[in-house]
Amino acid sequence: MASLRSKLLNTVMDPVPTSTHKVTVVGVGNVGMACTISLLAKNISSDLALVDMMEDKLKGEMLDLQHGSSFLRNAKINASTDYSITANSSVCIVTAGARQKEGETRLDLVQRNTDIFKKIIPELVKYSPNTILLIVSNPVDILTYVAWKLSGLPKNQVIGSGTNLDSARFRFLLSEKLKVAPTSCHGWMIGEHGDSCVPVWSGVNIAGVRLRDLDETVGTEDDKENWNEIYKKVIGSAYEVIKLKGYTSWAIGLSAAQIVSSILRNSQQVHAVATLVTGIHGIKDDVFLSLPCSLGENGVNTIIQQSLTEEETHLLQKSAQTIYEVQKDLKL
Amino acid sequence: MASLRSKLLNTVMDPVPTSTHKVTVVGVGNVGMACTISLLAKNISSDLALVDMMEDKLKGEMLDLQHGSSFLRNAKINASTDYSITANSSVCIVTAGARQKEGETRLDLVQRNTDIFKKIIPELVKYSPNTILLIVSNPVDILTYVAWKLSGLPKNQVIGSGTNLDSARFRFLLSEKLKVAPTSCHGWMIGEHGDSCVPVWSGVNIAGVRLRDLDETVGTEDDKENWNEIYKKVIGSAYEVIKLKGYTSWAIGLSAAQIVSSILRNSQQVHAVATLVTGIHGIKDDVFLSLPCSLGENGVNTIIQQSLTEEETHLLQKSAQTIYEVQKDLKL
Amino acid sequence: MASLRSKLLNTVMDPVPTSTHKVTVVGVGNVGMACTISLLAKNISSDLALVDMMEDKLKGEMLDLQHGSSFLRNAKINASTDYSITANSSVCIVTAGARQKEGETRLDLVQRNTDIFKKIIPELVKYSPNTILLIVSNPVDILTYVAWKLSGLPKNQVIGSGTNLDSARFRFLLSEKLKVAPTSCHGWMIGEHGDSCVPVWSGVNIAGVRLRDLDETVGTEDDKENWNEIYKKVIGSAYEVIKLKGYTSWAIGLSAAQIVSSILRNSQQVHAVATLVTGIHGIKDDVFLSLPCSLGENGVNTIIQQSLTEEETHLLQKSAQTIYEVQKDLKL
Amino acid sequence: MASLRSKLLNTVMDPVPTSTHKVTVVGVGNVGMACTISLLAKNISSDLALVDMMEDKLKGEMLDLQHGSSFLRNAKINASTDYSITANSSVCIVTAGARQKEGETRLDLVQRNTDIFKKIIPELVKYSPNTILLIVSNPVDILTYVAWKLSGLPKNQVIGSGTNLDSARFRFLLSEKLKVAPTSCHGWMIGEHGDSCVPVWSGVNIAGVRLRDLDETVGTEDDKENWNEIYKKVIGSAYEVIKLKGYTSWAIGLSAAQIVSSILRNSQQVHAVATLVTGIHGIKDDVFLSLPCSLGENGVNTIIQQSLTEEETHLLQKSAQTIYEVQKDLKL
Repeated sequence: MASLRSKLLNTVMDPVPTSTHKVTVVGVGNVGMACTISLLAKNISSDLALVDMMEDKLKGEMLDLQHGSSFLRNAKINASTDYSITANSSVCIVTAGARQKEGETRLDLVQRNTDIFKKIIPELVKYSPNTILLIVSNPVDILTYVAWKLSGLPKNQVIGSGTNLDSARFRFLLSEKLKVAPTSCHGWMIGEHGDSCVPVWSGVNIAGVRLRDLDETVGTEDDKENWNEIYKKVIGSAYEVIKLKGYTSWAIGLSAAQIVSSILRNSQQVHAVATLVTGIHGIKDDVFLSLPCSLGENGVNTIIQQSLTEEETHLLQKSAQTIYEVQKDLKL
Repeated sequence: MASLRSKLLNTVMDPVPTSTHKVTVVGVGNVGMACTISLLAKNISSDLALVDMMEDKLKGEMLDLQHGSSFLRNAKINASTDYSITANSSVCIVTAGARQKEGETRLDLVQRNTDIFKKIIPELVKYSPNTILLIVSNPVDILTYVAWKLSGLPKNQVIGSGTNLDSARFRFLLSEKLKVAPTSCHGWMIGEHGDSCVPVWSGVNIAGVRLRDLDETVGTEDDKENWNEIYKKVIGSAYEVIKLKGYTSWAIGLSAAQIVSSILRNSQQVHAVATLVTGIHGIKDDVFLSLPCSLGENGVNTIIQQSLTEEETHLLQKSAQTIYEVQKDLKL
Repeated sequence: MASLRSKLLNTVMDPVPTSTHKVTVVGVGNVGMACTISLLAKNISSDLALVDMMEDKLKGEMLDLQHGSSFLRNAKINASTDYSITANSSVCIVTAGARQKEGETRLDLVQRNTDIFKKIIPELVKYSPNTILLIVSNPVDILTYVAWKLSGLPKNQVIGSGTNLDSARFRFLLSEKLKVAPTSCHGWMIGEHGDSCVPVWSGVNIAGVRLRDLDETVGTEDDKENWNEIYKKVIGSAYEVIKLKGYTSWAIGLSAAQIVSSILRNSQQVHAVATLVTGIHGIKDDVFLSLPCSLGENGVNTIIQQSLTEEETHLLQKSAQTIYEVQKDLKL
Repeated sequence: MASLRSKLLNTVMDPVPTSTHKVTVVGVGNVGMACTISLLAKNISSDLALVDMMEDKLKGEMLDLQHGSSFLRNAKINASTDYSITANSSVCIVTAGARQKEGETRLDLVQRNTDIFKKIIPELVKYSPNTILLIVSNPVDILTYVAWKLSGLPKNQVIGSGTNLDSARFRFLLSEKLKVAPTSCHGWMIGEHGDSCVPVWSGVNIAGVRLRDLDETVGTEDDKENWNEIYKKVIGSAYEVIKLKGYTSWAIGLSAAQIVSSILRNSQQVHAVATLVTGIHGIKDDVFLSLPCSLGENGVNTIIQQSLTEEETHLLQKSAQTIYEVQKDLKL
């Protein structure tokens, strides 16, 4: 007997199983879920695959999102512990890894997470051989290098979420002090995501007016208005939020979603993301650090070569060295 | 000496402190935060006030969102344990209250949450005397009644998120079975949010084609295709998600955000929300139950009077009675 | 000497020339431009190619849109009289053709526009061999058939904008009468776009409540409340707007954009679009007429088989026959 | 006998007639309609009132938009030749006025349009006494002054769309040359909208890197890469588009919509808009010129005081003088 569905629907052609803007999120902890809800609610992708090893939690998150599908313009959300679910993703976001604990530096996490990446990255590339990898797990700079090595992908296709978030925090704090919208407060944090990131005070501007042109001490020890407090607050942000609520999630999730949006829209918008910086600002080793990069469908298109002061360059090189010291001993 | 800000900026007029579409969220647990991120990421409001008693958690969530402000089109997020922060909100969402535990019925929670509401509702109305209250805390139907009584607001201005979520779950499950988008699968769950909600099978349709016209047994015990399994799954949804991930959050947050969107846009869109149903479908007592309602800036504009079967009406009346039995003994 | 660009930018990898959701619009008259601005402003595609024979007008529209690129989230807009600009489009919208004049029936336009299509369609398929064709030019039903024949594409990949617009007009007029939002007023106009489209009164419902269940005369001659005036107004809409402002543009542009959105998002949302209806509702000839269809990345996925009355079926068959009579004599 | 509506709907409370974010557009020519469709499609306002003297055209545009309401998230569009329709608008956009013809300077239009404003502005303020006026009609700087005088509104509430568009054109052309997204190409055109607008080359930057720091001749006569061509193209843009398609519409409409968005969201985002510049950059007369301003619900909040070169300041003052010369003889 004919099924109700066959009475109701005349099938012309089955839907394609994968949308062209499919995004995978590996890890359904607080960060992974913040990435996921940001991608969905901001309508950046309508086809998401979630992967995690915790089967129950994974299924629970999938169901909870699926129940909201009619509020998400019919987005499709699938999940599995098996990576075949990720096939043909345009972008794969990796948030898996032990999370930074109160007081722990990002660097402490590294070998633990490298071992986890050895299981994740080859699986992702196997099912989506031409994907863009967006690494969010910490310490993000080293883990982006690790992902690059493990994936065999060209350097433009492996990106770390890096200091896009630190820059956003910087802009918010500028906006609080100036009472001008964050997106109109232009400032860039570069280098290593975390304690040693570098504020490029020389470029901080509102409508093209550099704060340094109004007061050359801005951001230095001599500054009587203590603008450098903003930088210190940025550095302390993750620690403070972790102390208060136990983890960070929304801002990093929104940051990753913004990066994915620029990639999927092929927009060439500039974001501070971790990219292979060999040969730039006098850095010789193969390390990933954040610099302003224009992004498109094939990942990093260009790196903006900022005019750094000697001190800024020095700090950047020092970060590179610190990272390299850890990185070279990793067992990949 | 002139400050850098005064060199940079010529103040014409200070910004207004409150935007016209300010929304307050009371409670920054998983549900409250899912409401908040949905409102922000979907660009429904750009001015949010968060209130909770847990000062650390509250501040942590506020900071984490503020750090994402430049990804949220410069939305403003404020938070305080003091309700003065909520002043002049267009909508106040209440998610506070003990959350439903595994195995616990929604009704078990009621007096505990009523006592909490006695502290919350008068404060909200004090600072926003003409606000719309959107109650999300469970058991939502009774607590919406409680909020109505405690607030002194006209009935149109007090709404429970009700079965908007149950309806969304129902539509998702229909869409899975039919391979048609959830928003094109029209079906309404009414009555009490939770175990005794009523599926109006007589109205379930795709493009105006009622499933019951294709097979009159759909949704009954005689149905060989077991469409009623969908209803059972809806009823079990909250329990299943709670079992798997510990709580529900995304779908209820998105549901509340959709309701707020219809209110702020003054759209007269129809949602299944809890409203005062006295005099409808033969219900005599003052109880709140979900029926399809058109919503606008002043809350509930109309209630759609569905053509229910005798059984559906009976189930609805039974829910009303069950609720009333609990409600009448509450100490308000 | 190094160029400023090379000093500023370190090129990692050139951007891909075509985004995965590229959309082509053929014809930059009022309808084509309304489609284009709708696609861009609603953020449905960020990569548009415009084609027309009027070189000046085409370049003017391109420049005017490009000047707004920073307001359109950096969308790319290209234009040329040469179809190579359209290469690798996911969807091609055809709006070219002589436009309906005051008093002219849609059928009068047909051979004129068929001849134009002979130049357009093969060029589109040459450069985007797996595209979805969305035909907007009138008479849309016949021209969708023409496009199907000329393109050699499978039937699911050739769609006419059809009565998606008539249905939207119907819903708006229902909403005016009921004071309920248009998207909550469910009603479907099917069949031929224009004078002979068929209102499926039996399915018209609000929240699943069929108007016919409240008053069985709704939409008939016996109806004392004259609901059928709504249908007559829908039929007269194009004529009225053309009389008042000279042409129709916004609603048809928005309608086409909505269809493209469902395609690119692979949503399986249901829209009334023109599709090959052979074998459905007793239609024997190869004609395109609008029926509710679920849409995805590969075009039409399913056709919803509505339960039509004898009279509705008869009207549909009559439209099919009228169209076939014209169609069979066309020189393709 | 009970009407169908009363059987279907139980009225709880009539909808409010005006949404809090109502926007009025005066003038339904190409520019006014581009503003309108941008506001609607970008979901900036869901309640629009259109006013014009051409009754037929006005009604035609209203109907055409209303027919698209279900594609515009149920936005309400009303129109009338009577200004009572505009009551309680948050923002009123004025696009009315004779439009710039090929070869005509913006200044030629002035008295003609002043006379038109004498009819429009008092009516707008009568019905929305606390509105923000956004003037788009040309010559926009003088007409914004005229509107300010005629309205009696405080200076922060009267804004001209000014060089927000010129700046957008500048950014687009920079983006074409650099292959970086327009929103990442920061550059400001200030002063008079049109032939004598001033490019602030000293502030042009990508990610905080000033082009002038890479090559100090950028934008000067000595520049071998001819970056100043970009400026010349911006100046020529309106003329070129008018020559090619007969008028400009999309970019100016999108520009106005962006300004309205910043106002309604109370975002303090910075835009180059025409504001009263008395006392800034050495300008003594009461003239309106574009400078970067942060905007909020009450209009202009701050003016960014750019560090201009002597030449830039001189050009600005010259514009101010030219404008004042015309302005002082106007019959208000």
